[in-house]
Amino acid sequence: MFIGAQISLYPMTSDFVGVITTSLSALDPWRGQLRIETDDISTLLVGPPEAVLPAIRDLFVAAAKTGVHVTLHATLSRGCPGEPDDPMCHTAVLTGPLAPIEERKALAHEAVGRAPVLDQAVSAQFSLYTLGIDQHMTEIYGCIDFLKSSGVFDRSKNFCTRLHGDAGAVMATLEQAFLRFGPPQGHVTIDLTLSANSPSPR
Amino acid sequence: MFIGAQISLYPMTSDFVGVITTSLSALDPWRGQLRIETDDISTLLVGPPEAVLPAIRDLFVAAAKTGVHVTLHATLSRGCPGEPDDPMCHTAVLTGPLAPIEERKALAHEAVGRAPVLDQAVSAQFSLYTLGIDQHMTEIYGCIDFLKSSGVFDRSKNFCTRLHGDAGAVMATLEQAFLRFGPPQGHVTIDLTLSANSPSPR
Repeated sequence: MFIGAQISLYPMTSDFVGVITTSLSALDPWRGQLRIETDDISTLLVGPPEAVLPAIRDLFVAAAKTGVHVTLHATLSRGCPGEPDDPMCHTAVLTGPLAPIEERKALAHEAVGRAPVLDQAVSAQFSLYTLGIDQHMTEIYGCIDFLKSSGVFDRSKNFCTRLHGDAGAVMATLEQAFLRFGPPQGHVTIDLTLSANSPSPR
Repeated sequence: MFIGAQISLYPMTSDFVGVITTSLSALDPWRGQLRIETDDISTLLVGPPEAVLPAIRDLFVAAAKTGVHVTLHATLSRGCPGEPDDPMCHTAVLTGPLAPIEERKALAHEAVGRAPVLDQAVSAQFSLYTLGIDQHMTEIYGCIDFLKSSGVFDRSKNFCTRLHGDAGAVMATLEQAFLRFGPPQGHVTIDLTLSANSPSPR
């Protein structure tokens, strides 16, 4: 199993380099569990989802707390058949057979209930893709059901779903969407945008 | 068939609103062929791919020509089973049966050869997803073969592929990747980032 994300942080300020540089220290507590590589377009995070998602959260919250309008894009992926198996990505959640969808939705809700409160409002917009299976819309509709009762559901849009709420709950919800839908050993990806401090009305 | 994109333009300057507002006029020639809806996170473009992709290109080139570091994210989608059929999205390219992959690669190369030269260098990073089919990696590897001989291939990264070159050729290559791989009536998406004028070395 290979799990990770390509992430990019976009502070809408002429001092974008300063905001990015300052925010990067938020990744420090996660560096032991992640492989991190940066180029001019994005930063690769490889590791278990229990580290990848909170690392993205902490980086984004640090940038958002500067007060500038900031967005983050992430391409999340698990189980891509074209990537090598990597023991550092192991997670107990992605073992065993595919459980009934109601059981998975209940586990997802429990996990979101344990999310920390970070006192930073964020909006998220994302698309979940479960690849290599015939009935991919069944998993996607199951995920949308979970999202609608997650407490941070905002609205559905063409091609994607919007969430809004505290960064802790929003990112816990995204982590559950990523892990609980699609087969445990399957190929699942998320196309994610986070936004904070936008001057435009929601 | 329903075809479109959710797009977001990110100018890394304190005058980001000014750059976005100025660049929007680049969409004017395409408005007759597109349905356009904007909120605080993204702008929806719905219509035929022959308008959606060039509209994204022209918007991004207009923003890049201001000289500021600017990125654009697009979630492209065609054939999503959850979206309504829309006659304005019709395109002759997405009719008929799935042709042999070598034939599709040749057609893609021909189309890229007709791309205009726009005198604006851009980098692109993207992932192609062909959904609802068992052998999705066959289509993805076929697409990667096409990209490697497209003239704008930069390099492969985990989860995605990088292109670099003139905006005309790069966007024509992306349009062909979107249209020629995966079944004509299938569900295909692209997670795309464009970048120009980055202060970081490639």
